[in-house]
Amino acid sequence: MNNLITDVAGLSVGQAEDPALASGVSVVLFDEPAIASIAIGGGAPGLRDSALLEPGMAVEAVDALVLSGGSAYGLDAMGGVQALLRERGRGFKVGAMRVPIVPGAILFDLLNGGDKNWGLRPPYWDLGLAAARNAGADFALGTAGAGFGAMTANLKGGIGSASAETAGGYRVGALVAVNAVGQATIGETAHFWAAPFERDAEFGGLGLPSPLPADRFGLRLKSDAGASAHAPPTENTTIAVVASDARLSRPQAKRFALQAQTGMAQALRPAHAEPDGDLVFAAATAKNPRPPSDRERIEIGLIAGDCLCRAIARAIHAARALPFTGSRPDWHQAFGR
Amino acid sequence: MNNLITDVAGLSVGQAEDPALASGVSVVLFDEPAIASIAIGGGAPGLRDSALLEPGMAVEAVDALVLSGGSAYGLDAMGGVQALLRERGRGFKVGAMRVPIVPGAILFDLLNGGDKNWGLRPPYWDLGLAAARNAGADFALGTAGAGFGAMTANLKGGIGSASAETAGGYRVGALVAVNAVGQATIGETAHFWAAPFERDAEFGGLGLPSPLPADRFGLRLKSDAGASAHAPPTENTTIAVVASDARLSRPQAKRFALQAQTGMAQALRPAHAEPDGDLVFAAATAKNPRPPSDRERIEIGLIAGDCLCRAIARAIHAARALPFTGSRPDWHQAFGR
Repeated sequence: MNNLITDVAGLSVGQAEDPALASGVSVVLFDEPAIASIAIGGGAPGLRDSALLEPGMAVEAVDALVLSGGSAYGLDAMGGVQALLRERGRGFKVGAMRVPIVPGAILFDLLNGGDKNWGLRPPYWDLGLAAARNAGADFALGTAGAGFGAMTANLKGGIGSASAETAGGYRVGALVAVNAVGQATIGETAHFWAAPFERDAEFGGLGLPSPLPADRFGLRLKSDAGASAHAPPTENTTIAVVASDARLSRPQAKRFALQAQTGMAQALRPAHAEPDGDLVFAAATAKNPRPPSDRERIEIGLIAGDCLCRAIARAIHAARALPFTGSRPDWHQAFGR
Repeated sequence: MNNLITDVAGLSVGQAEDPALASGVSVVLFDEPAIASIAIGGGAPGLRDSALLEPGMAVEAVDALVLSGGSAYGLDAMGGVQALLRERGRGFKVGAMRVPIVPGAILFDLLNGGDKNWGLRPPYWDLGLAAARNAGADFALGTAGAGFGAMTANLKGGIGSASAETAGGYRVGALVAVNAVGQATIGETAHFWAAPFERDAEFGGLGLPSPLPADRFGLRLKSDAGASAHAPPTENTTIAVVASDARLSRPQAKRFALQAQTGMAQALRPAHAEPDGDLVFAAATAKNPRPPSDRERIEIGLIAGDCLCRAIARAIHAARALPFTGSRPDWHQAFGR
């Protein structure tokens, strides 16, 4: 176990980024089409081909899921992933044709100081293609992939991941690009809201501050201060993928997504605000052949929520600041740790 | 401030219960129709007249919101509330008629040991009427109202409430009947998951256990053991109302509900499971005439989530066990505090 979503059998992760652009793409490729769904908690989602993820829709399985920077320009990234998958003969079969099913979501990183003067053609289609070509079991956390240009209210955001196993042996994992309107840390401290869910000091092992700071209940938003004080309140969004090796139906995958989303509420303050996307894709690779019981499905969703919560803190903990004035300091700079 | 939802101007709360039945009803009456909406997080909701609460539906304001025991039989309770409101001349005006708008939700408490042999006519319509007649600023927490017969996996559930004020002076509050499939306490300890959000030792002031128990990640369900081991996994559901004195539009009330629901994810493990209802009504009384800014609306939702989280712990902390074999021990019995 590498404490990455790739501990879940049946998927790989690839990332690509452009340091001058200060943005990037993360892709989850499934070895075989995976039953998937989505839960949208925030008020500002940016999505491509997500409508088909609801129960009752015809196409139940996806070939890949994409997280991208670039705001709505990043919705090109899924096209680059589709192109590679078509070359590999993948996709939903319609007569003699195949159409790779590649839903994805974007976050807003256009005001982070990177060079966004890309001319006519945005770079995200090619970043999507490059990310898919890079797919494997190992990948970088922090300032990488879709988290390359991400920020939170006080700190550099990033890409995070975590995994765990349920009591019955199902693997679950999360991948998240953290670009929240608020904070993953408590008040002015270095401590993470996710602390009660931390395993093996995976994000510093600080626990919760004791005593808890009196100002912990306050609202701290990205738009409050700093280089982006001019920014609209939509300069945000946390986007995630959770996956399990269990076999789930489409409605069960929807419930899996809804349960996993509790991890955002545990790790971020605020969560599910209007200017955040705060959405979770959920996918089931069915590599574990034993059908989960009702109880086991609850545990899969629960532990996936834990993984998402932990992955959010790991993203911040692993991130490094960008060399631009639009960047927030990273966790290590901010707290001298 | 009484740390109750009734700290929000423009509403009152009434409750009624039948100790032999081991069930009851809690009602939030609004002085004037309040813009309301709903967020449903769990997989087993039981609701009456809730479809109109979505943005885009014609009737935007409600006269009351009801939480009831009795599973789907409890959906009679809203009728009793409507009857009283009609006597008072309240209701949506349609020609010469008025129709009080009273959405509500139920929880499952039919297997708690109370006498459910009520003959042909269920008692919930009359309990709803009685609860509405009792409405005022003060009301009991714990084993009262809709929480009278409620249980969690390990402890007696109950009715809880909490309130707070935002930095800009908006009052927010929560009322919740806690009948969760899981736990509000951590592992085998007396400590609440809600501890980081506690104010003024409102549920015992224990904080989090230190160190956190190693078994805290495990799944503990109501159906796992005890007197209800035979019970179906639907013997659950946490249902809540959050309210603010801010003026909100219907879409803003929907966002308010979605944000507030994060409190369930913080206070309960698991939250949003398939056999739980886990739903939150949100209402805006508009008694504070100053329109909230975008930022203030985020804070209203955030602090309401805190209130819901705290109210869940307060419900468990205040509850007393029922004298039936179907009852779980209460927090005080279980931990000798």
